[in-house]
Amino acid sequence: MSSRLPAEDRRLGVALLGSTGSIGLQTVDVLERHADRFRVVALATGHNGTELAAQARRLRPVVVALAEEAVPLDVPHEVTRVRGHDALEALATRDDVDLVIIGTGGMVSLRPVLAALRAGKVVATANKETLVAGGHLVMAEAGRNATRRAAVDAADPLATPLAWLRPIDSEHSAIWQCLVGEPRAGIARLVLTASGGPFLDATPDELAAVTPERALKHPTWTMGAKITIDSATLANKGLEVIEAHWLYDVDYDAIDVVVHPQSVVHSAVLFVDGSLKAQLGTPDMRLPIQYALTHPERLPSPTTPPDLVAAARLDFRAPDEGRFPALRIARDAGRIGSRASAALIAADEVAVARFLAGSIDFPGIPRLLEAAVRRYGEGADQAPDVETLVALDDEVRAAFATGPVEGVA
Amino acid sequence: MSSRLPAEDRRLGVALLGSTGSIGLQTVDVLERHADRFRVVALATGHNGTELAAQARRLRPVVVALAEEAVPLDVPHEVTRVRGHDALEALATRDDVDLVIIGTGGMVSLRPVLAALRAGKVVATANKETLVAGGHLVMAEAGRNATRRAAVDAADPLATPLAWLRPIDSEHSAIWQCLVGEPRAGIARLVLTASGGPFLDATPDELAAVTPERALKHPTWTMGAKITIDSATLANKGLEVIEAHWLYDVDYDAIDVVVHPQSVVHSAVLFVDGSLKAQLGTPDMRLPIQYALTHPERLPSPTTPPDLVAAARLDFRAPDEGRFPALRIARDAGRIGSRASAALIAADEVAVARFLAGSIDFPGIPRLLEAAVRRYGEGADQAPDVETLVALDDEVRAAFATGPVEGVA
Repeated sequence: MSSRLPAEDRRLGVALLGSTGSIGLQTVDVLERHADRFRVVALATGHNGTELAAQARRLRPVVVALAEEAVPLDVPHEVTRVRGHDALEALATRDDVDLVIIGTGGMVSLRPVLAALRAGKVVATANKETLVAGGHLVMAEAGRNATRRAAVDAADPLATPLAWLRPIDSEHSAIWQCLVGEPRAGIARLVLTASGGPFLDATPDELAAVTPERALKHPTWTMGAKITIDSATLANKGLEVIEAHWLYDVDYDAIDVVVHPQSVVHSAVLFVDGSLKAQLGTPDMRLPIQYALTHPERLPSPTTPPDLVAAARLDFRAPDEGRFPALRIARDAGRIGSRASAALIAADEVAVARFLAGSIDFPGIPRLLEAAVRRYGEGADQAPDVETLVALDDEVRAAFATGPVEGVA
Repeated sequence: MSSRLPAEDRRLGVALLGSTGSIGLQTVDVLERHADRFRVVALATGHNGTELAAQARRLRPVVVALAEEAVPLDVPHEVTRVRGHDALEALATRDDVDLVIIGTGGMVSLRPVLAALRAGKVVATANKETLVAGGHLVMAEAGRNATRRAAVDAADPLATPLAWLRPIDSEHSAIWQCLVGEPRAGIARLVLTASGGPFLDATPDELAAVTPERALKHPTWTMGAKITIDSATLANKGLEVIEAHWLYDVDYDAIDVVVHPQSVVHSAVLFVDGSLKAQLGTPDMRLPIQYALTHPERLPSPTTPPDLVAAARLDFRAPDEGRFPALRIARDAGRIGSRASAALIAADEVAVARFLAGSIDFPGIPRLLEAAVRRYGEGADQAPDVETLVALDDEVRAAFATGPVEGVA
């Protein structure tokens, strides 16, 4: 982060992209609690003009962006209003922004993330596409920034790629927290925990009969529909394996997934000496959001601490990749490369939407994923540039939007 | 550590005090596996001349010390032999020693630890008296060394007291591992786990009828008789609470004990943001021993990594201080100060010996501890110097060696 802030305001300037979604709202909560450290410079969202206006009145940013041109936006007159998707890149690279927080879904933030890193901004992201599709691009930028810092001072907290591209996901935050102060050479394996979703013990026949209503009931976290279905298919965990590969530069063979129904252990790291470090917490995204903002420091938060005695019992088992093939499919996609991974994450959007709309059944989700990875995993460049990735995203969505999944699988 | 080693040998010089006990033997195993990093300069033990001679032939130290004058000692002729307890201090402060490892029991190593720290040596200790009785002395020395380093370079790994006085106990090593890279201000609470021992579910009547034979069966760790009984009374955990207070400079009110029968989670740290970090492992002391030698690096070890899936289930519950009062008694002693704590640990030696000899019953152990803390917790200086502590140790042992515990309690 630059030191260009005037002496009278040492707070970090923050741009929050996706300020009205689940991550956005919780990020605003964290920022408001620590207003002595963070100054909200820019807020952007897609179409919720009402909430964006309310945030603008409370937080008094310099600029707000609303993608949807047609939605009315009533913000204080001193707040600059910009419209359209292209605004995100300009917001993320402003001189008065130090830290960019990505709470958007989809591919819309990949360009802004890359631009922000190139402009020397720290990026904290809850967006899966950033790493699943763009991991090779964003980690290269983060690595360049880290190398530049390390050349001046190896002990600079910004001398590592993770300090530039910070995960907000609770699993990846857990791994990051387990890695602070640990030399890279000591890492042996990563252990991602998975709740296992609501169908952990369902038979194949029961899985075939799963309705959207049943699938939307997640046992431990209250989340959006997309992520709840992803958690039920384990596709979510598969995508996290790909993200972990990029974030921590660890081989796919060294990333384990363990089913842990209570979701108290958020993830863990095994070291070469046989020591395992785990991070535990209650299900509250404000913890990983805040950690991404304050790392390496920790500040008080309203998050209820985990209570081992109250938890009484923590269970672990291996995931069943036979009944939940999305995990294996994602790992395969990751091994093939970023084109296959980008196809996977785009196809998953389509698959979940089609399942929720009744157009495919629950086992149809992994079948559609497998078809997409097969089609886009062949031949072509597996480290595409950002333009290719954005175009590919549209192409995959169109290709799998209709038609029988049986036919493609 | 000094940089006085000649260029042709960059290995760290090690003095191992207590080389033939359980910790000593496992330390030798670790040192032999990493002979490229460590050079064994000095070995010392009490009376096992046969094992000491065998170690001397394998490791070729510069000097060996055997406390017991009467025991024969057959070491290679180029190895210097010294006798008597006073030799330890000279060994621990040798110019060619960088790192002193304490595997002895009892008060015998307190003076050598203080001398080593004053001479700028790193000390790794598995000895409980070092911290329970001498915590105020050793941490002051470790703090002075750390402050000296911090004045030159705040990022120096030796700029913290823990880098100078390193714990080998698995619980304290776990906490240390959870704290690396974490700023001090972030620590909220420490969580020490306890197996709960073999009588976790015993009724008061059953506890009164416990025999030494039953008490010596520990559910998860294979250890010596003393530590196994201490684990059954929870006195061991109480002593660890006092050690944790000194090592991590955390108030007694902020140190929790949680019963965890599987002993997989070795201990944990709660941070102010609601995040809990835990270190997990299999029961193998070579892991914490090696970590104390290589910190902040980690090297491969033969320790079997913990397997969450194989463990399947981890349980936690609150300790019952009604049936296991030693925990409360130790906490009280710690709060009173180092004189009370020194009396506690000396009294515990006597109490366990008397229980094993059939002179007191199992509930008599905490009764004797309570009597000792009451007697030595009153009035006098609660931060005694090393001479006073050594004399006190003898005095307490003599005072409680015989006589009815009912009478004193």
